[in-house]
Amino acid sequence: MKDYLTKDSWKIIEEGYHPEHNKVTESIFSIGNGSMGQRANFEECYTGETMQGSYLAGIYYPDKTRVGWWKNGYPEYFAKVINSLNWIGIDLIIGGEKVDLHQVEILDFYRCLDMQKGLLSKKLKFNCAAGSFTIESTRFCSWTTKELGVISYQLTSEDYAGEIKICNYLDFDVRNQDSNYDEQFWKTEGEDSEGLYPYVAASTKKTGFYVHGAMAVSYDSEATPVVEKEHSRMQAREWSTYKVQAGETIRFTKYAAITSTFNHAQEALPAKADEILAAATDKGYTSLEQEQIEAWSKIWEQGDITIKGDIAAQQGIRFNIFQLKQTYSGHDSRLNIGPKGFTGEKYGGVTYWDTEAYCIPFYLGTAQEEISYNLLKYRYDQLDKAIENAAKLGFKDGAALYPMVTMNGEECHNEWEITFEEIHRNGAIAYAIYDYTRYTGSKSYVLKYGVEVLIAISRFWSQRVNWSEAKQAYVMLGVTGPNEYENNVNNNWYTNYIATWCLRYTIEILREIKESDADHYSKLLAKLSFDENAEQEQWQDIISKMYYPFDAERNVFLQQDGFLDKELIPAAEIPADEYPIHQNWSWDRILRSCFIKQADVLQGLYFFSDQFDIETIKRNFYFYEPLTVHESSLSPCVHAILAAKLGDRAKAYEMYLRTARLDLDDYNNDTKDGLHITSMGGTWMSVIKGFGGMEVKNGQLAFDPFTPEEWAGFGFTLRYRENIVRLDISESEILLENILGPDITVLLSNEPVTVLSGSTIVTAQAALKTV
Amino acid sequence: MKDYLTKDSWKIIEEGYHPEHNKVTESIFSIGNGSMGQRANFEECYTGETMQGSYLAGIYYPDKTRVGWWKNGYPEYFAKVINSLNWIGIDLIIGGEKVDLHQVEILDFYRCLDMQKGLLSKKLKFNCAAGSFTIESTRFCSWTTKELGVISYQLTSEDYAGEIKICNYLDFDVRNQDSNYDEQFWKTEGEDSEGLYPYVAASTKKTGFYVHGAMAVSYDSEATPVVEKEHSRMQAREWSTYKVQAGETIRFTKYAAITSTFNHAQEALPAKADEILAAATDKGYTSLEQEQIEAWSKIWEQGDITIKGDIAAQQGIRFNIFQLKQTYSGHDSRLNIGPKGFTGEKYGGVTYWDTEAYCIPFYLGTAQEEISYNLLKYRYDQLDKAIENAAKLGFKDGAALYPMVTMNGEECHNEWEITFEEIHRNGAIAYAIYDYTRYTGSKSYVLKYGVEVLIAISRFWSQRVNWSEAKQAYVMLGVTGPNEYENNVNNNWYTNYIATWCLRYTIEILREIKESDADHYSKLLAKLSFDENAEQEQWQDIISKMYYPFDAERNVFLQQDGFLDKELIPAAEIPADEYPIHQNWSWDRILRSCFIKQADVLQGLYFFSDQFDIETIKRNFYFYEPLTVHESSLSPCVHAILAAKLGDRAKAYEMYLRTARLDLDDYNNDTKDGLHITSMGGTWMSVIKGFGGMEVKNGQLAFDPFTPEEWAGFGFTLRYRENIVRLDISESEILLENILGPDITVLLSNEPVTVLSGSTIVTAQAALKTV
Repeated sequence: MKDYLTKDSWKIIEEGYHPEHNKVTESIFSIGNGSMGQRANFEECYTGETMQGSYLAGIYYPDKTRVGWWKNGYPEYFAKVINSLNWIGIDLIIGGEKVDLHQVEILDFYRCLDMQKGLLSKKLKFNCAAGSFTIESTRFCSWTTKELGVISYQLTSEDYAGEIKICNYLDFDVRNQDSNYDEQFWKTEGEDSEGLYPYVAASTKKTGFYVHGAMAVSYDSEATPVVEKEHSRMQAREWSTYKVQAGETIRFTKYAAITSTFNHAQEALPAKADEILAAATDKGYTSLEQEQIEAWSKIWEQGDITIKGDIAAQQGIRFNIFQLKQTYSGHDSRLNIGPKGFTGEKYGGVTYWDTEAYCIPFYLGTAQEEISYNLLKYRYDQLDKAIENAAKLGFKDGAALYPMVTMNGEECHNEWEITFEEIHRNGAIAYAIYDYTRYTGSKSYVLKYGVEVLIAISRFWSQRVNWSEAKQAYVMLGVTGPNEYENNVNNNWYTNYIATWCLRYTIEILREIKESDADHYSKLLAKLSFDENAEQEQWQDIISKMYYPFDAERNVFLQQDGFLDKELIPAAEIPADEYPIHQNWSWDRILRSCFIKQADVLQGLYFFSDQFDIETIKRNFYFYEPLTVHESSLSPCVHAILAAKLGDRAKAYEMYLRTARLDLDDYNNDTKDGLHITSMGGTWMSVIKGFGGMEVKNGQLAFDPFTPEEWAGFGFTLRYRENIVRLDISESEILLENILGPDITVLLSNEPVTVLSGSTIVTAQAALKTV
Repeated sequence: MKDYLTKDSWKIIEEGYHPEHNKVTESIFSIGNGSMGQRANFEECYTGETMQGSYLAGIYYPDKTRVGWWKNGYPEYFAKVINSLNWIGIDLIIGGEKVDLHQVEILDFYRCLDMQKGLLSKKLKFNCAAGSFTIESTRFCSWTTKELGVISYQLTSEDYAGEIKICNYLDFDVRNQDSNYDEQFWKTEGEDSEGLYPYVAASTKKTGFYVHGAMAVSYDSEATPVVEKEHSRMQAREWSTYKVQAGETIRFTKYAAITSTFNHAQEALPAKADEILAAATDKGYTSLEQEQIEAWSKIWEQGDITIKGDIAAQQGIRFNIFQLKQTYSGHDSRLNIGPKGFTGEKYGGVTYWDTEAYCIPFYLGTAQEEISYNLLKYRYDQLDKAIENAAKLGFKDGAALYPMVTMNGEECHNEWEITFEEIHRNGAIAYAIYDYTRYTGSKSYVLKYGVEVLIAISRFWSQRVNWSEAKQAYVMLGVTGPNEYENNVNNNWYTNYIATWCLRYTIEILREIKESDADHYSKLLAKLSFDENAEQEQWQDIISKMYYPFDAERNVFLQQDGFLDKELIPAAEIPADEYPIHQNWSWDRILRSCFIKQADVLQGLYFFSDQFDIETIKRNFYFYEPLTVHESSLSPCVHAILAAKLGDRAKAYEMYLRTARLDLDDYNNDTKDGLHITSMGGTWMSVIKGFGGMEVKNGQLAFDPFTPEEWAGFGFTLRYRENIVRLDISESEILLENILGPDITVLLSNEPVTVLSGSTIVTAQAALKTV
C-alpha cells in the first residue's frame, strides 16, 4: 500500500518528489492513445531507478521462452510488446554539465496526469552546480494523430547566466528488461540528421517490423538558439545552444512521428512521418493540445462515472476508465487489450481471455458498437491459428482452441496446466459473441462471422469430452478452470457448463441461420464441411448427458470432482502475514487447499445468471466466496456483481474496494511492473453491473441500483444501442436521463420506466432494491 | 535401433569406423571407476560430432535453472556433474601438420571395451598427407587408485620418415554442452610446466571445488624424443619430438592424476597428485593394467550373469552390470548413482529414487553389504536437508521430504508436478531400508540410523494426508505417482499404500527399539522430540482409516481417483508411428489418456508382493499391463518380475527384452546423450528376480527359476549374507553351488534345499515352477 499521491476528481497528482516510488509513478502516469504508449519516464537524464518504456501497439518480438522441461505442443516463443524508440529524450547541458535529475537537488516537484484532457505534465525546480532552474513540460500521445507524440517544454533559469545546450534526441538503442537472453530485439536500419527532420529507423529481429521515427523541434523562446543536428548509430540529435540571462525562459516543442510497417508499406514510412511532422508543426502545440482535450472530452461524454462524497473512489474509477481507454481505442481490429497495456513489459500487449470476460462489457457500455465488434473480429481473424493450435494438440476436423496468450493468434504460453488445460478461454470467447449480440441487439456479427467461431469451438468441446463408462455420462478430464489454484482437475463445473452452453448456443444460431437465410446456411455447411445431422446429434448427446459435479448435501455445484475431499477452511482463517498465499505458500500447498484464486463456479453463475434461480446463486455464493482469496485482480468484480444481485450491499462494496484503487495505491506492490489494465474493466463492471445492477433482460436495459453507504451518491453514463443514458443515484432518488437517442423504456428494479428522448425522470430510491 | 557393434560375450567391439554414430559410441564405451569417468572421446584431435565428457564424482555446479513461470518453493538451481579436466588429450603433429581423425583417411578401425578387464582400447590405421600410420592405445580409470587415469599409446609409421611431434596435454578450458547460460563452470587456478609434473588447476564457480590435474609421460620407445614442456591459460603441454624411420614405433604411457577438494584439503592437492604420479610411473603401465584386471576379476566373481545360446543377451547383461559397477563402486557414502552416471551431461550424477527402487537390490546381490549400506547412509546424511526441503513447502516438526533430484540433499528439480508432488520417492527411500534389512538380515542400520529417516518420513505422511469429511477417510490429494503420465491426482493407490506401509514399519521398528534397547529408545525420543503416544496414535488412525481407490466391479486397485472416467484402450491399439507417445502426443492428450508410463499400482504389488495373494496380483497385472507403454526405462523390469511370478514366461521375456540392450542397440535413439545407468539395475532384477524368481522369504533365500525359451540356459552368482552362491539353470536341471560361506538352506520352488559349504547340488528343472 502506498499513499503518496494527491486525491483529485480528475487528476493524478504527485506533489513533492518521491524517487523511491519512481517506477510506480512511471506506471501510473503512463499515457497512450491505443496505438502508442509511454511510461512516465523523465524526458531528462535520470540515473535513478527507472524502467524505460515506449511501446507501439502490435509490434512485438517472439522472445525464446525459458522452460526447463519442454513438453510436446509447447510454443517456441513468448510474444512481447517491446520497448521501442525513445522519442521523449531531452538532455539539458548547463554550464557544460549534463543535468541528471537523480543527482541535482530537487526543490519543488509537481507531476500531474490530467485524465480529463489526456495530458501528462510536470513542473519542477532544481539546483545544480550552475544555479537554480525550473522545468515545465507537458506531453501527450495524440488521440487524433495516432503516430504523433508531442512535448511542450520550457526551462527557466532563475539565477544563472551563461550557456545552456539542449539536446532533443531520438534513441533506438533500447532494450527490454525482461529479455530472456539479454538480447536486443531491434536492429538498426539507419539514421540521419541531414534532412529537415532527423530520424532513426530500426526493425525487429525475427518479426521484421520496420519502424521509422522522426522529430521536429520548434523553438518558441525569444532568444533564438544555435541549432546543430547530428546522428550516430541508432540515434539522432538536435542540439540547440542558448546564451541565457537570469530569469530567462527557453521554450520549445518537440514533435515525434513514429511510423511503422504495422500500418504502412516500408517505403512509405519516411514520407508518412515527415507528413505528420509537417502538419503538426504547422498546427503548433496549442492547436494540437486543444484537439487532444476535445477528443478526451468526447470519450468522457459517453463513459464517465461520478461518485459523490468519496474523492478517492472518484479518482480511482476515472483512473480505471482512463487507462483502459488509453490502451485500446478500438480503431484497429488487429489490436487487443494487453493485461499491462502500454505501461510495462510483463504480459505486455498480449491477449488473454480477460478481453472477452472483463473488457468487452466495458467497451459495449462506453463506446460505439464497432469497438466491441473489432474485439470480436480479432478472434475471428485468428480462427485459422486457433484451429492450427488445436491440431498441434491432436484435435481435428476444424476444432479450434484459442490460445491462452497470444499476439498474432499463435499460443505463447508454456505452463502445460494453463496452455493445454485452461481451455475455458474458448468458452469466454464464445460467450462474448453472445454477450455482444444480447447487448447490441445486432445479430449481424454472430450470423456472419461468429457462427464460424462457435462451430469451431463446439467441435473442440465435442472432441475434448469423453464418455465415462463409470459415470455413464460425458466427462471433461484434465482441465484448469478460472481458479488457477487448481490444476489438472476433472470435471470443472464451470468448464463443463460453458461447454454445453456453447453447444446449445451454436445449435440455436445454426437453426436461426437455416431458417432465415438458407443460402448462407448451405454455403456455411460447405465451407466448414459441417455435417449438420451427425455433428449436431453428437452435440445434443453431449448436452443431454454431460456430467456436472454436484453436492446434494449442500445443494451446490462442485468446482470439480473431489473438491469435497479438501479441508474446507474459511479464507478468513489464513493468518494475515501469509497473504498473498501465492507468495508465501508452496504451490502444492495451494493446490491441495480449498482456497480459490478467482471466481470459478461463481464466474459461471455470473455469466449465466438468467439460467439459475436466486436461491441457487445464493447457496453457491455463500459456499464459495468465503473460500476465495481473490489473488487475481479479476476476481472481486464478479463477486461484487453477484453480491449486489443478492442484496448483500456490504459484501458488494467490500469486493469493489479490492479493485478500485489497486494500482493507485499499489495494493499488491507490483505497480512498478505496469498497471493491471484488463482488471480495470472489472472495476467498471462492479459499479455498473454491481451497484447499478445493470443487465439486459429480454432485450431491455435494466437497472437495480443502490448507493454504497460510504458514498453520497454515484452516477454513470452508458451507451446502450442507439441511446446514451445517464443514471444518477443518490440516497433518496434516482435520475435517469436519456441524453441521446430515441425514447427508451428501461427496467428500474424490474419496473418499466419510459424516458423520452432528451428528457430526465426522477424516481424515489426507497422503492428500489428488494431482493 | 542401431546394430553396428559386434556381439561378444565379454567385449563391446566396434569393427570398422562409424563416425555417424560417434556420440553413441562415446557413451557406450565409457569407462569409470566410481570416482571418475570418461566418455570414449578420442585422445587425438577430432573435429567430427562429439560430446567431450570427463567427470569427477561429487563435483557439481549449481546451474541456474530456466523456468518461465516460477513457483514458490522451486529450487534456484539444477546441480550438474560437470565436464571436467580433459586428461586424455594427445595431439599428433606429423610432418608439421596436426592429425585430425575426422579428416584423415581411416583404413582400419577397431575399438574395444573389455568389460572383463575394465580396459578401453583402439587400434586404427590411417593415411594422412605424410603417409600411413597405425595407432594402438589402451586406457583405463584405475580401480585401485581412484584418482588415476592411464593411457598406453603407440604410433607406428608405416611408410613415413621424418619428424613426429606428440603433444600430451591437460586442458581445463572445458564447458558443458547443457550449460543453461553458456557459462563456463570452471575458473582457472593456475597452471605450470616447470616442475616435474606439468599441471593445471581450476575451481568451480559458486561451489568452490578445487581440482588439481597433473600428468607424467613415460617414453618407452627406442628413439628417445626431445621433450619440452609449456603451459598457457588452463592448459599444460608436454611435447615430445621424434625423428622416425618407416616402420618405426613410438611408445609412451600417459599418467594423469586428478585430485580435488572433494577428497583432500586444498593445500594437499599438488603433493597428493605428485605422489600418485610417482607411484604410478614407478609401477609402470604393465603392473597397473594387471592390477586393473585383477580388480575387475574380483568384481565379476561375485556378480556375473551367464546366458547360454544367446550371445546378444550375454553381452547385454554384462554391459549392464559393468556400467553400473563403473558408476558406483560404493566406497564413498557421499556418492550416489546418477541416471546417466559418468557417460553424459543430462541428469548427470544427480540422485533420483532410481537408486532405492532399482539399484540397491543390484548392489545387495552383487557386492559386499557396506556398499548398499553406504547408499542408505547417503540419505541419512542428507536427512537435515530433507527436513529443510519439507519446511520450505510448509511441513513442520521434523517432517522430511527427500528431494526428487539432488546432489547434496537440496532439491534441484522444478516442475511442480514432480518436485512438489512426486512424493512417493519418500516411500521408496523408506522401503530401501526395509529391503536392505530383509536381505542382509542385519538390523544395525535401521535401528541406529534408519529409524530417524523412517520417523521423519512418517511425520511427512501424517501431515501430507488430510481427513476427508466426504469420504470419512484420510486422503492424499495432489500427488504424482510413479506413472508420470498422470499429474496432480488424488489418492494415488501406490502412494497411499506405501505411506501407510511406512507408518506401520516405523511403528514396528520403534517397538523393536523400545523392547531391545530402552536407553537408545529414550535418547531417540529426546533427540527427535518424538511424542511416542500422540504421534503413533495419529499414525495408527491414518493406517486404519486410509482411503484406497478400488474398483469393486473388476476387483482391482485404482491407480487414482477417477481413473475409470478415462477411455480404457489397450496400448496395443496406439499406431506404431505414434510411439513414443511422449514425443508424438501433446501433454494434455497423454494426461487424459489411460496410458501408463511405468508401473504404478504394479510397482506397489512388486514391492509388497508378500502382502497380496497371487490372484490379486494377477487381476491387477492384466488390468494395468495392457495400458502401459513402458516409456520409462524403469518400467519393464517390474513387469518382468511380476509376469514371472504369475508364470507368464513369454510376457516376462518380452519385458526383459525391452531393457536388456536398450543402450547397446540405441533403442530410444538417445544413447548419444549418455547411458541409462539406473535402469541397468532393473535389467539385472529382471534376470535374478524375474527368471531366477529370487526372493527372501522369512529370512530364507528362495528361487523359483525358469529359462526363457530363447535361451539354452542361464546362471548367476549372487551374494546373500555370508554366502556367495551360484545358480545355473538349463532346460533340464538346476545347479546350485555354495561358492563361499557356511552351509546354506535355500528354497528352490518352495522346497528347502541345503547346500553344504563349497559344494553343489543338482535338481531336475521339470519339478519346478508350478504357478
